[in-house]
Amino acid sequence: MSNFLNEKTARLAPYVPGEQPKDKKYIKLNTNESPFPPSKRALSLAKKEMANCNLYPDPDCSALISEIAKTVKVKPENVIVSNGSDEVLNFAFIAYCSENAPAIFPDITYGFYKVFAGVNGVPYKEIALKGDFSIDVNDYLDKNGVIFIANPNAPTGLTIPLSDIEKLLKKNKNRVVVIDEAYVDFGGESAVKLIKKYDNLLVTQTFSKSRSMAGARLGFGVASEKIINDLKTVKYSTNPYNVNRVTAAMGIGALKDKKYFSDNISSIIKNREDTTLALKNLGFECLDSKTNFIFAKSDKILGENLYLKLKEKGILVRHFNKERISDYIRVTVGSASEMQAFITAVKEILGE
Amino acid sequence: MSNFLNEKTARLAPYVPGEQPKDKKYIKLNTNESPFPPSKRALSLAKKEMANCNLYPDPDCSALISEIAKTVKVKPENVIVSNGSDEVLNFAFIAYCSENAPAIFPDITYGFYKVFAGVNGVPYKEIALKGDFSIDVNDYLDKNGVIFIANPNAPTGLTIPLSDIEKLLKKNKNRVVVIDEAYVDFGGESAVKLIKKYDNLLVTQTFSKSRSMAGARLGFGVASEKIINDLKTVKYSTNPYNVNRVTAAMGIGALKDKKYFSDNISSIIKNREDTTLALKNLGFECLDSKTNFIFAKSDKILGENLYLKLKEKGILVRHFNKERISDYIRVTVGSASEMQAFITAVKEILGE
Repeated sequence: MSNFLNEKTARLAPYVPGEQPKDKKYIKLNTNESPFPPSKRALSLAKKEMANCNLYPDPDCSALISEIAKTVKVKPENVIVSNGSDEVLNFAFIAYCSENAPAIFPDITYGFYKVFAGVNGVPYKEIALKGDFSIDVNDYLDKNGVIFIANPNAPTGLTIPLSDIEKLLKKNKNRVVVIDEAYVDFGGESAVKLIKKYDNLLVTQTFSKSRSMAGARLGFGVASEKIINDLKTVKYSTNPYNVNRVTAAMGIGALKDKKYFSDNISSIIKNREDTTLALKNLGFECLDSKTNFIFAKSDKILGENLYLKLKEKGILVRHFNKERISDYIRVTVGSASEMQAFITAVKEILGE
Repeated sequence: MSNFLNEKTARLAPYVPGEQPKDKKYIKLNTNESPFPPSKRALSLAKKEMANCNLYPDPDCSALISEIAKTVKVKPENVIVSNGSDEVLNFAFIAYCSENAPAIFPDITYGFYKVFAGVNGVPYKEIALKGDFSIDVNDYLDKNGVIFIANPNAPTGLTIPLSDIEKLLKKNKNRVVVIDEAYVDFGGESAVKLIKKYDNLLVTQTFSKSRSMAGARLGFGVASEKIINDLKTVKYSTNPYNVNRVTAAMGIGALKDKKYFSDNISSIIKNREDTTLALKNLGFECLDSKTNFIFAKSDKILGENLYLKLKEKGILVRHFNKERISDYIRVTVGSASEMQAFITAVKEILGE
């Protein structure tokens, strides 16, 4: 740290991404990536666009936005795109949080919300999940802040029903409610359909998981036109060309290839259910995941220990050294053979 | 604008990118892009990387950073990469500016500095350029703020010598001095060599202009290791995966293809000098540009009028409706044939 840093930044505790060790080749089940490459159609459009990279992208990303709007059944005016969904989440912190409008989110959720509050110098309140890791929306109704709910939640994988989200929206009419749907495609129900009814709803989604584009960085937000215009103000005040040409083209291709998308989703769901069953047969307790990861613990081995032993065997999973969840590991659902290798390794570690 | 916006954001006046009209095909000389596509080597590496986009990028961008470090002759610890150089400039505003450390920059310069101050809620002071549009660094020595100097400056195209930058660095030891070298490759002298001597210097550069990658979004900062670590704290608190896989690969290829780079630079410089001469022969006054654009005015026609008439003829240049420079147009230096078309159009407009 230099001596030049301002106070706010000196206090920051940055986000820690999942490890990417370079010492050997691992089976990577630690950052919720897709085991499948981007769709051929996505790659073909991206390849065609590359040679135009001497020219700035369309800052409005009209072609991509129109394809997203068609896919999620809203108007283009209801969509903004971003460099991963992290960026549009940060835009929401920049636009809506303040000393008088703290960010409100669960104590166990996506670790970046707390960091966004820090970097923007705004207060936040964490609301404890229930004992079973569920979210009780009644805990959020009197907080007068900007609510951030990941649905499904991470790293638990649990969902809340749309009726609960409607309750949040109705009881927080003067504040924005952000529903982070990074994992929605793996079995959740999207709140996008509620944007016509509630002008205080912002839904964010990503191409990183279900559309195999984590490495290309693409996310988007869906909301009332007024909210989208707010977020565009922030975009044009930080990075107007936030989405590059190749990624935008790849995104269009990914959306057009509906069969590849649904085939991959089906595979992941099947592998998730098979792996969950195998873990349960080994005595694990697994939360009811609607995502591309499994949150599991065993009485026979501590989470950290299991994480370390799996790493020795060349398999990376994620362990959070955090109260209430330190017994657990979070395992990304990969391909069938990756999950087979994972279960085999767990059996060996447990001596079964 | 929604009712949910906080005060700071409600007051924002976002940056306005150069227009990209879609009504017909224009000769685009308005956003300082390169007329040449990215290097073949850049495209080939990018193509190879595309299929890995299901996996997150290396957040440290080690391979790219090592190639940049080699190119500008510093250590990898002295480099950070970003989604265009706008992003690393914004990181500097986030990290170093505050109520007690205003941003200081010329009244006529890159329009985004003012916007970055706004979005970060920090004060700024504009220092008037001299009558000939030059920067007198003596005006900056007692301001106790974070200095942002574009060198060469935009839209004037003028440079200041490194001795002036050293003066700024010596007299502002407790504050960071940011030298924005977006256009340095077209004839300026880089301050990168000064980072070993001054721990308060941050130099930013971009792949958008000289390396034909405006559409891929890649910039970088060079500074003392402590400053780089400060900026990494901000990066990991906003968007750890800010540079995508394809762009990182393309950047490596662009740096390796040294011949393509220097050939393109030579072409642009030749076209700039030829066009400047042709404009002068038509009675224009042109500032002494060391960039890939020309800032010029004529007694025979107002800047806005010339801009509009060129647009009618299918040629886009940039006009700034701003005191002191509203007589001028800023013309990007394109290919020889584009510049020929531009000069022909100007002659027709002037009736010569």
